[in-house]
Amino acid sequence: MTQRPFPDARRPANAGPKAAARNRAALVSAAREIYTESGLETPLSAIARRAGVGQGVLYRHFPDRAALAVAVLEENVRQIERAAAVPGADIAGLLGVLTWHQAESTAFVGVLHADGGGSHFDPPAYALTLSQRVEQALRKHLPDGHRLAARPDDLMLAVGMVSGAVAGRTREQRESRALAAWRLLGVEVGPVRPFEE
Amino acid sequence: MTQRPFPDARRPANAGPKAAARNRAALVSAAREIYTESGLETPLSAIARRAGVGQGVLYRHFPDRAALAVAVLEENVRQIERAAAVPGADIAGLLGVLTWHQAESTAFVGVLHADGGGSHFDPPAYALTLSQRVEQALRKHLPDGHRLAARPDDLMLAVGMVSGAVAGRTREQRESRALAAWRLLGVEVGPVRPFEE
Repeated sequence: MTQRPFPDARRPANAGPKAAARNRAALVSAAREIYTESGLETPLSAIARRAGVGQGVLYRHFPDRAALAVAVLEENVRQIERAAAVPGADIAGLLGVLTWHQAESTAFVGVLHADGGGSHFDPPAYALTLSQRVEQALRKHLPDGHRLAARPDDLMLAVGMVSGAVAGRTREQRESRALAAWRLLGVEVGPVRPFEE
Repeated sequence: MTQRPFPDARRPANAGPKAAARNRAALVSAAREIYTESGLETPLSAIARRAGVGQGVLYRHFPDRAALAVAVLEENVRQIERAAAVPGADIAGLLGVLTWHQAESTAFVGVLHADGGGSHFDPPAYALTLSQRVEQALRKHLPDGHRLAARPDDLMLAVGMVSGAVAGRTREQRESRALAAWRLLGVEVGPVRPFEE
């Protein structure tokens, strides 16, 4: 006895679980580009278009604007975590990757001084979680005797201070401010670059 | 030949130019308190009530919400300028006054990293002006050889970094974060207090 195939048994080759992961990655990557160019208020339709997927696909992955924005931020954090997992990773190299993301994403900068930023109010829970993941990744490679190892709060205090100083309309201006801030703190930073496997 | 006196020749004792200055000061001071307690969105009527003046008086001095907020911020800056004008003022003492205002006013903290703060956009003109006045007041007392005198940008970079790190729901938490940030920068800060003549 043969059943009529489910509709998805006839779906095109680009609709399987692998394609779903690819679509999700394309959406996160398109959102990152568009946020950098035009800010968080860009219509979701423009992001779907840039990713080359339909709006239905976008909504299946990201029910609302906030979910997509958090996914973009999480991808920043994941890159730092992956850099920290590489054998031979060191704190200067990790701070270089962190600085790259600080220059790249002003929203990520907001997460890193989420518990600051002059707010009267508690930062959103996702920002605290992401910020704690950044701390864990960095702290794994913080040697005794490092400038930021003397007191438990100093590491994320410094990250918040640098984030607070990141300014400028271009990536280059923001990178240059971040590096000036690290220098003023007396903290060595490796090459500023994204993590690449 | 006698003229009929102008109406303001018969105004009550509290309506002269001195009273106008008093009313204005009372409004700025009430606004400062209420902003600290409840944020910038508080209805103007509550501020007039706290200052003990009518709403008409408030609108005569401050045509809109932004004008009042800027007046409050300008008063922060003026205190730092007055502290800088005292004979014998020094940079550590001035930074103590600055830090007092950083802990007191989260909006003032916003001004001090107005050119940062993760914005894609230009900061408002009043914020740049106020930030430049703070810089002038501090720089007058920055001795050669000071930690922040080595490069022209370092002074306000440091102020922006500390501002970026100021966090917490209470004045005490914010003061403690600011002092930790100055310490991490290796910058000495005098007693944290408002300027008093």
